[in-house]
Amino acid sequence: MQAELQDLKNRLLEVDDLNRATAVLSWDQSTYMPSGGAEARARQMATLGKLSHEKFTDVAVGRLLDALRPYEESLPYDSDDASLIRVTRRQYERMTKVPAAFVAEMTNHGASTYQVWTEARPANDFRRVQPLLEKTLDLSRRMANYISGYEHIADPLIDQMDYGMKAADVRRVFGELRAQLVPIVRAITQQAEADDSCLRVGYPEAGQLAFGLDVIKQYGYDFNRGRQDKTHHPFCTTFSIGDVRITTRVRENDLGDALFSTLHEAGHAMYEQGVSTALEGTPLAGGTSAGVHESQSRMWENIVGRSRGFWEHFYPQLQQQFPAQLKGVSLDTFYRAINKVQRSLIRVDADEVTYNLHVMIRFDLELQLLEGSLEIRDLAEAWHERYETDLGVTAPDDRDGVLQDVHWYAFIIGGVFQGYTLGNILSGLFYQKALEAHPEIPAEIGRGKFDTLHNWLKSNIYQHGSKFTAPELIERVTGGPLRIEPYIQYLRTKYGELYQL
Amino acid sequence: MQAELQDLKNRLLEVDDLNRATAVLSWDQSTYMPSGGAEARARQMATLGKLSHEKFTDVAVGRLLDALRPYEESLPYDSDDASLIRVTRRQYERMTKVPAAFVAEMTNHGASTYQVWTEARPANDFRRVQPLLEKTLDLSRRMANYISGYEHIADPLIDQMDYGMKAADVRRVFGELRAQLVPIVRAITQQAEADDSCLRVGYPEAGQLAFGLDVIKQYGYDFNRGRQDKTHHPFCTTFSIGDVRITTRVRENDLGDALFSTLHEAGHAMYEQGVSTALEGTPLAGGTSAGVHESQSRMWENIVGRSRGFWEHFYPQLQQQFPAQLKGVSLDTFYRAINKVQRSLIRVDADEVTYNLHVMIRFDLELQLLEGSLEIRDLAEAWHERYETDLGVTAPDDRDGVLQDVHWYAFIIGGVFQGYTLGNILSGLFYQKALEAHPEIPAEIGRGKFDTLHNWLKSNIYQHGSKFTAPELIERVTGGPLRIEPYIQYLRTKYGELYQL
Repeated sequence: MQAELQDLKNRLLEVDDLNRATAVLSWDQSTYMPSGGAEARARQMATLGKLSHEKFTDVAVGRLLDALRPYEESLPYDSDDASLIRVTRRQYERMTKVPAAFVAEMTNHGASTYQVWTEARPANDFRRVQPLLEKTLDLSRRMANYISGYEHIADPLIDQMDYGMKAADVRRVFGELRAQLVPIVRAITQQAEADDSCLRVGYPEAGQLAFGLDVIKQYGYDFNRGRQDKTHHPFCTTFSIGDVRITTRVRENDLGDALFSTLHEAGHAMYEQGVSTALEGTPLAGGTSAGVHESQSRMWENIVGRSRGFWEHFYPQLQQQFPAQLKGVSLDTFYRAINKVQRSLIRVDADEVTYNLHVMIRFDLELQLLEGSLEIRDLAEAWHERYETDLGVTAPDDRDGVLQDVHWYAFIIGGVFQGYTLGNILSGLFYQKALEAHPEIPAEIGRGKFDTLHNWLKSNIYQHGSKFTAPELIERVTGGPLRIEPYIQYLRTKYGELYQL
Repeated sequence: MQAELQDLKNRLLEVDDLNRATAVLSWDQSTYMPSGGAEARARQMATLGKLSHEKFTDVAVGRLLDALRPYEESLPYDSDDASLIRVTRRQYERMTKVPAAFVAEMTNHGASTYQVWTEARPANDFRRVQPLLEKTLDLSRRMANYISGYEHIADPLIDQMDYGMKAADVRRVFGELRAQLVPIVRAITQQAEADDSCLRVGYPEAGQLAFGLDVIKQYGYDFNRGRQDKTHHPFCTTFSIGDVRITTRVRENDLGDALFSTLHEAGHAMYEQGVSTALEGTPLAGGTSAGVHESQSRMWENIVGRSRGFWEHFYPQLQQQFPAQLKGVSLDTFYRAINKVQRSLIRVDADEVTYNLHVMIRFDLELQLLEGSLEIRDLAEAWHERYETDLGVTAPDDRDGVLQDVHWYAFIIGGVFQGYTLGNILSGLFYQKALEAHPEIPAEIGRGKFDTLHNWLKSNIYQHGSKFTAPELIERVTGGPLRIEPYIQYLRTKYGELYQL
């Protein structure tokens, strides 16, 4: 079996090299590439993607996976080799069901729709993207239909991002969460708005970047194996376990934008940096699902980075960085400003409490579109209605309505939004388990120390990479299935204090 | 034939995509990559290189080239399609003679030798690299021997960089040049040394970079299709005709270092940016030979960038950029400083006049090593002897002797140095032809205008990419073979005035 295993690993390594090279090309495209490079770059990335797909779906890979089944079954479930064979088989079965030509059609359609969207959004012109989005919906349904035997047509698409979750599971969890969230939001928004004007007085870029870098260095993001560059839309990308990069953007009149996006992306990056190096070059070398990945970004951004204890330590340093801007702004005022809750229009700017309501709207609309109970031509109107019902706000246009998120316009309809809220729920669940093991964590955060939490996350979550599915990992870490209670409890405690609920 | 031609072009485009992707990975490695990314990056680049080699040397490519021969012969020699088939066949024949495993062995050996060299050079320890260099020489000979029918064993290696040139040709040209140069160097170095202390008084990095960028923008380097980043060893790299990048480094106590390397790399980059977009994605989309490429970097660095007229225009701007440093430094003093001629140890820091003597030493030693008339164990001593004889200087150690240039320690022995001096010779030859066509060029340079020269170079040299070999291109542009006289005349005139010879 060792020869077959080595053959499989060599093939996977070549696929990994191609995928990581594509990631470098994509990072460069978003950070440094001059505009003249766009056309050739798109082609270069498509070529690498095609070669990777060809090599991964090669029938020889399928034969090796078959030949290795007895070996896999002889090993412990959680061993590196058994996990490699199991996860590779799952991906192989999925990818061989979807024809390469279809993948290319979807990628090309996504790229051209994205181009139109970049013009249609500023022009507030949903009609321009409508026919393209109709094709996207058609392609998304076809994608789902390549995978047979689903309960809900969204299941195969959710599966792709959050393996092991079904539309029905997500609906149930989201329903429970909504029932808890709505009264909290109502209670908070009946009070006077928090004053966050201190965040908008003009913070020079260099100081913002320096402060953010300093914080994530103390978090434990390893700059020998990463770096931060500027871009339009912040992201985290992995070129190897030894090179996991983040990006940010800076708005001088919004202190929170770069800072919290930096903490957020650093959370993603620490997860990827924490994967066991034994898994390098395999499909296991990365976070396991969209939801678990997001649980780490949101934990470091919100549970840690917007906590009172964190700022008791860091606020004096921030005041030192920006003495003119923060002179006379108390810690209390600042803490309330960065945790201001409000009914708003834009998901990416939303606070911790209302954020999930934004996500649920998108998730529900995705399901309705895929089911056929909602037409694309009615989508902009449906969006406005849901925002009025769920968040009590009316968008003046489609630019800040249905056109606001890139996902549907660049990728697919279905499976792309649930991970954000699953991540929030999981951040609360995992944090509770970390506190049970190490009750000293909040006090350490208050001293600017993060080792205990970081080490707990590394040994319980990060090191495993994609060995376990999200449900398996949740079971291993918490001894039970996904539960919303710890997250709700976290929100109730924090916002109960902030708003004297 | 159109189906075969399209098939060939598709295959070449895929190879080009892989090669350009490798270039992006290499650029990132030299500019932004954190140290932790090194191991995986080397593997990723090797994988892309292997795939590119496999695809280019595929027997199907050979069959297509055979099938396309009648079509090629029906076309004008200089048509895009005939040139594509001709140049591809030449590269195909070469690459199919060298086994992929041998290429990989050579690449791996180069990478490990380079690692040792980075430590051996600061430690002044030639003995440490000696056994590795012996293997490099063995590999270099084997590389040459894959190509049968050469006159001199260096010919196939020279051919790889400067197709159409043989060791005997280079020897003859270099002999003529040396005979002319030695008396000039002697006459200059008998005089008092020029005072270049004004270049070493401390120039802040930001101002140096801004001034250099401003000059090359006026040269015509297109920043919509390029950019400059910082690195250790400046280079130019091409990701597509729409994305040709340069790099530089800054020494605050040496104004000339960043500035002239920027002008140099911009010369390379303007050549690559000037290739006809009809050649994009083919083996023709790039400069034709090491020598012709270097002729463009040296023309923009030296003939233009170190000319009196250039500085009559730009020196007041430089003084404005650095008022404290250049206050009271006359244009004459500055002009003499940037054109200071001296017998020195380091090739890359050498002036225009002595530079070629440095190159010739390396070229001669390469030939002796390949012929077997010099052993690696005697190389360090032979190096010192030649520097004493040819340049009249004695290196205190091997660090600034045989260990100074990376080429032999990272790549190959043979074929890597002649291009530098061929480039100098060609810069003079091409510039003379440009002046014959447009005598107004020097006056334009004196007004900070470069369009006439740039356009002449584009239409006579750049647009053709690699359609023509260097000898063919020289014949087309000058109506005759390579001649040293215009270059010698250029040196005599310029340095005759500077040193009242």
